[in-house]
Formats: sequence, C-alpha cells, structure tokens
Amino acid sequence: MAKLNDNYLKLPGSYLFSTVARKVREYQEAHPDKKVIKLSIGDVTQPLAPVIIDALHKAVDEMGKAETFRGYAPDLGYEFLRNTIAEKDYKARGCDISADEIFVSDGAKSDAANIQEIFSLDNKIAVGDPVYPVYVDSNVMAGRTGTYDKLTETWSDVIYMPCTAENNFAPELPKEVPDLIYLCFPNNPTGATVKKAQLQEWVDYANKVGAVIIYDAAYEAYISEEDVPHSIYECQGAKTCAIELRSFSKNAGFTGVRLGFTVVPKELKVDGVALHGLWARRHGTKYNGAPYIIQRAGEAVYSDEGRAQLKAQVAYYMNNAKYIYNGLKEAGYTVSGGVNAPYVWVRTPGNMTSWEFFDYLLDKANVVGTPGSGFGPSGEHYFRVNAFGSYENTVEAIDRIKAL
Amino acid sequence: MAKLNDNYLKLPGSYLFSTVARKVREYQEAHPDKKVIKLSIGDVTQPLAPVIIDALHKAVDEMGKAETFRGYAPDLGYEFLRNTIAEKDYKARGCDISADEIFVSDGAKSDAANIQEIFSLDNKIAVGDPVYPVYVDSNVMAGRTGTYDKLTETWSDVIYMPCTAENNFAPELPKEVPDLIYLCFPNNPTGATVKKAQLQEWVDYANKVGAVIIYDAAYEAYISEEDVPHSIYECQGAKTCAIELRSFSKNAGFTGVRLGFTVVPKELKVDGVALHGLWARRHGTKYNGAPYIIQRAGEAVYSDEGRAQLKAQVAYYMNNAKYIYNGLKEAGYTVSGGVNAPYVWVRTPGNMTSWEFFDYLLDKANVVGTPGSGFGPSGEHYFRVNAFGSYENTVEAIDRIKAL
Repeated sequence: MAKLNDNYLKLPGSYLFSTVARKVREYQEAHPDKKVIKLSIGDVTQPLAPVIIDALHKAVDEMGKAETFRGYAPDLGYEFLRNTIAEKDYKARGCDISADEIFVSDGAKSDAANIQEIFSLDNKIAVGDPVYPVYVDSNVMAGRTGTYDKLTETWSDVIYMPCTAENNFAPELPKEVPDLIYLCFPNNPTGATVKKAQLQEWVDYANKVGAVIIYDAAYEAYISEEDVPHSIYECQGAKTCAIELRSFSKNAGFTGVRLGFTVVPKELKVDGVALHGLWARRHGTKYNGAPYIIQRAGEAVYSDEGRAQLKAQVAYYMNNAKYIYNGLKEAGYTVSGGVNAPYVWVRTPGNMTSWEFFDYLLDKANVVGTPGSGFGPSGEHYFRVNAFGSYENTVEAIDRIKAL
Repeated sequence: MAKLNDNYLKLPGSYLFSTVARKVREYQEAHPDKKVIKLSIGDVTQPLAPVIIDALHKAVDEMGKAETFRGYAPDLGYEFLRNTIAEKDYKARGCDISADEIFVSDGAKSDAANIQEIFSLDNKIAVGDPVYPVYVDSNVMAGRTGTYDKLTETWSDVIYMPCTAENNFAPELPKEVPDLIYLCFPNNPTGATVKKAQLQEWVDYANKVGAVIIYDAAYEAYISEEDVPHSIYECQGAKTCAIELRSFSKNAGFTGVRLGFTVVPKELKVDGVALHGLWARRHGTKYNGAPYIIQRAGEAVYSDEGRAQLKAQVAYYMNNAKYIYNGLKEAGYTVSGGVNAPYVWVRTPGNMTSWEFFDYLLDKANVVGTPGSGFGPSGEHYFRVNAFGSYENTVEAIDRIKAL
C-alpha cells in the first residue's frame, strides 16, 4: 500500500503569489474598467537583449544541422559556459573559483530548493525573516522543520533571524547555532545588502561552528555601491563554508529562459566528505543538463556587447527603483532598499497589516505589490514594491499612490 | 555542525555510462588510429526537424520584442502545450486525460528521479531487472533502499523483478507486495514490450494491493506493433493507480533541448489524498517552468508537418534497429527487442560476462555498446546495442561484428 510524504500536508495553504494573483483576478473581474498595474511578482518585462537573441538564433541553427547538432549536454554544464563564468564572475573579482566548481542548472529556484537534499534530515536551518519562501518550503517537504504554528506562522525547528529596521534588515548572528544558514544579499524581499566586513563575520562564524552557508546572490547585478560584495567568495575562508547560488533571471531577463548556476567549492567538506561530489552525483542522477541553446545564450551575457546591453537593462530597472523610492518617500512613506536591489521595502502606514495595505492599494490606486507578511512574520507591516515593470507603468503607479 | 545525507555515500562508485566513457577514452588514447563507433548511450544523432527549428526561431523572435516577451512560464506548463498533449497523445487514443493532469517539465529523467519525493520514506519499491538506473538511484539517495550487497549488486529493500528470456523480458507480478512499482515499456534496456492485456494485469494488481505504478513510456513513439499500448491509460482503472512519464527526447530528438511531461490523474489517491496536488506543489516550489521557446518547440512536434517529419526520423532509427537485429542474428547471436524500441538486446556469446563482451567488441571491432549487467544483475550476459547512430556508422559497426 503506497504511503504519502505527509510533510507536504504540513505546508500551509496557498503560496503567497497564488493568493496575490487570485485577489487581483477577483478585483479585475469585479472592475473590468480599471487598469491594474502589477509591481508584485519579481518578473522582468523588458525583452531579451539583441545579443541574446542573436546567440539563441545561432544555436538553434546549429541544432538543425547534422554536423553541429548537440544531444545530451554534459550534466554539469558545457565547458564554454563554465569557463566563462569562472573567468568573468569570479577571477575578475579576485575570487579563486574554478570552472569545475560551477554547476549549470535551469535556475536558482531549482537549486535553492534542491540543495538541501545533500544534507541529512537532522540539520537545523536558519533563515532571515522575512525570506524568499522556497528555502523554508523545500525543507518542510523534506521533513526538517518540525511543526507549524498557525498563530506565529513559524516552524518549531527553524531558526528565524529577524531582519528589521533596527538592524537595517540584515540579520544578526543567531543565538542558537544552526547547521545550515540561508543568506540572500541583495535581499529579496527587503532589498537590503551587507558590506563585505559584515559578510566576513558570517563566514567566520560558519567556519567556527561548522555550519554551511547557502548564499543566494541572484540579485548581485543590481549592486551599485562600493564595498558591497557581489560574491561570498570575496570573503576570506568562504570556500570552506559556503555554497553560492546565481541566476540569469534578473541580470539578463531569463525568467522565462531558465538558466542559473551553483558554486560548490571543492574545499567545502562536511563530515570529511566534499559536498562537491554529492552535488555532482545529484546533478548526474536527477538532472540532464541545461539546453544547449540556452547555455549559448548564457555565454552571450558575458560578451562585451552583452555586458553593455544588459548594463542598460539593469539601469532601466534601477531607474524605476529610484522613482519608486523617491516617490513613496515624498508621499510620506518609510522606505528602504532600492539602491542595490530592484525591490523597495515600504513600511505600511498607520497600523495597517501587510494584507490590509495590499487591499487598500489595489482598491484605491489599482496598484499591486506584495504583502511583506507573506515572506515571514517580521515582514508584517511591510510591503514589497518591485522595479521590474515598464517605466511608464511604474511612474503611473507611484503617481497614483502619491495622489491618494 | 552541518551533517551529510549519507545515503549518497551508499551509492556504488561510478555511473554505468561514466565507466563506458572512460574505457572508450582510454582505448582511443592507446589506439588513436582506430575509428571507434559508439552504439552505447541512448543519445540521438539526427538534427532537429525543420518544423522544430522554425518554431524555435519564431519563439526566440517573440522573446526579443516587448509586446511578445514572456517572463516566468506557468509552473505546470503553458496551456497551449498541455492542451495539445491532452488532445493528441491521450484523447486521440481514447484515454480520458485532461490538460490539467499534465505537468510539463525539463525531461523524463528529472521526473523519474523526483517523483519518489511525494511518497514517504517507508514505501518499498519494485523495479524490473535490468532497469534504467535512475529509478533505484533516486530512491537510494532518499534512503528507501536498505543496504547494498556488493556481491549480488542488489539493495536489501528493493524488490527486483527479473526480466529474462524465459518471460520475454517482461516482469511477472512480484511475490512480495510492493508499494511503488516502476515499469518501463517499451523497455530500456531490453527493448521489450507488453501487450495491452498484460499491462491490464499490472493495473488490476496495483489497484488491488494499493500500489502506485510509475510508468515510463519515454519510448512509445517506437511502437510498431498493434495491441502494444502507447499509454498505461489505455488500460481500465489506470487513473486510480498510475503516473505516466513521457519524454520528447527520443520521439523528437530533444535530448539536448530538454522537454518532458508527467501525467498525474486527479483520481489517483493515496491515503485519501490526491497525488495531483502534491506533485503540483512540488512543481510550484522546486521548479520554475520549462522555457517558453522550448514549449513552443514541443507544440510543433504535434503539428501535421511535425508529425510527418518526426515519423520519418523515428523510421530512420528503426531502420538501423532492423539492420542491427538482422545482422547480429545472421552472425549467430541471440537477439531480442528492436521491433518496438530503438534498442536491441543481445545475449553474449559463450560464457562471456557483459563487460568481457564490451571489452571484446571494443578491442576487436572498435564498436561500443552498453554492458547489460550495468542495468542490474539479470542483465549479466547481455549487451545493449542502440539504433540512434547514423545509418552509415550502424552498418559499418554491425558489418565489423559480423566479420569477427
């Protein structure tokens, strides 16, 4: 008699973005004449850059000819892409990461969800609060998080590290020692970052207590300030304690193209065993490589032309972020983020809950954002507004809010 | 202190195809003048059909324009593709499967490896022997298979169902009752199939004992005989006991393009809970949808033009299969498979082990196949030859073997 993985049944009802989508759909059905502007789910809107389009067409043509057709890709990624990443993302920043420590995948979401598999079920995780839901949910599914308390919306076996205005939305070292630590900078949802010295403290701490840091750097392309690290490997000793997740979704608009990678340094050992071998085995057994044509598109991201075009694309979104930040500030809101990240984190006015403010904005300004409480209890009374819309829509949305 | 998932450490050394690749590399280095022909790993060699190339180019162009750019795909797949699959793969064969029971993914390997996650760790699996290694290995990683016996090359908590010449390489119902049953027809590696009445027995058995069948139909496009089912849903009652895995790799040459899907009927319940919801939750949390351009390529597979072009491609490989089958038979080998599948299953001559025959063919004929023992203990003294090479190479390889 087959038996369920009943950890799945412990997951609370619906996913944050499904609820947002349902509320918007219901509102739009009730008010078909209203133009609703969505600055909610972190999805890009600008088309792929010309250099990416060219690379895709070229690779498609190769797949149509017997001489240049490619079947199964190497499980871990084509060397042309891994070499490029090692060179341009790491060596150029002084990080000693080699091509064979890079595992190409279909995106950082999959990697963020799958990475927990190579650890035993009795590891205790620590997460920032608020946080991207995938870190906790994937651990719930594995059975690592204990029981859910509906009242506090927390799991009994998860260490929550509050990210609040008091600590500039950067978590402090936890009192209880965790085994796995999820960190995300620039942060989703708060848009906060840490300086290199602060990140170094985390690396030193992890090395001291024998914890592994899972460092999500999906938004590194949005860093504009000096002294904010783009990679955790800019810190001394990170290669013995940290795994880094990277994405092409936000720096190159690949949300619908799907490409990412994970770095597992060979020096990173747990119980004397290199995690590199375990992750390689997982890739080899449960994954069949990213599509050739998409890996070629990824390579084009790093060409001189690609860099120039994508720098302009990032600048476009960051110009939106500036408009959001300044506009809401002028309207009297307390705002943060938006400088090194495409997210602006807004304190709700008065004593409104995140969802009350969501409903208020949807109803009064026809603008959709994301309730901060959906990312964790410390996100209550906050609201995420993202900069991935068109400039015109962003201006209109913010001007409507200002006019309230 | 982080702790490993030490189930990974139980996995025996290297993956079958890595060992094959190493032996070929070593031989080629020692004999650089020899032309080695590989009929080993099941990778296609024909370029993508023109209709697929056109669909890819068109979708790439859409991604380059703001009006038609697509960001995140729906986690479960675009409706245009799910509707097409439901219509052409299922309704056309009299199977009552609806679009929302179809989950589009990056391929059947990922799905075959991930599907075990929605079941608890105390399910006992049954597999054919020999078998595609991913079914067992993914369960080893989860900790569901007990201990490994090096001598017999079997796991203590896995039910092996021998597929031998005596049962025409189709397993019999197991004596011990399993919870999860992996079946693959047309079979990799033996090329064997079952008639509809035989598959109906499995469905009836699973419904009776409350087991779930995970049915891998990746090779269904190669079925040439009547009365061989293309889908398990051709059997009465399959919707309450079976999950089906499908691939675009072999019917459309997508090994390097990556697209597949899994069918989880809504009626399929375990402990009173619909597995459909669990698999949807897994997709939503751990996956971010297949790329838009690749889903458009998948849609083109089902167009009239696509079907005609791909029928010719399948016929090309099956013509190779016929040459392999007849050639080896003429040379005195005992062969099976090759009629409804692109694999020919060869009994090794004399008392040779699978690896001895591998070495013999590599050395004497410079031909590479896959040792049957790599797929399980009952594969010993067998050898898999695949039909995915070019016609010219296939003919040359078989003629070399015949000349030995």
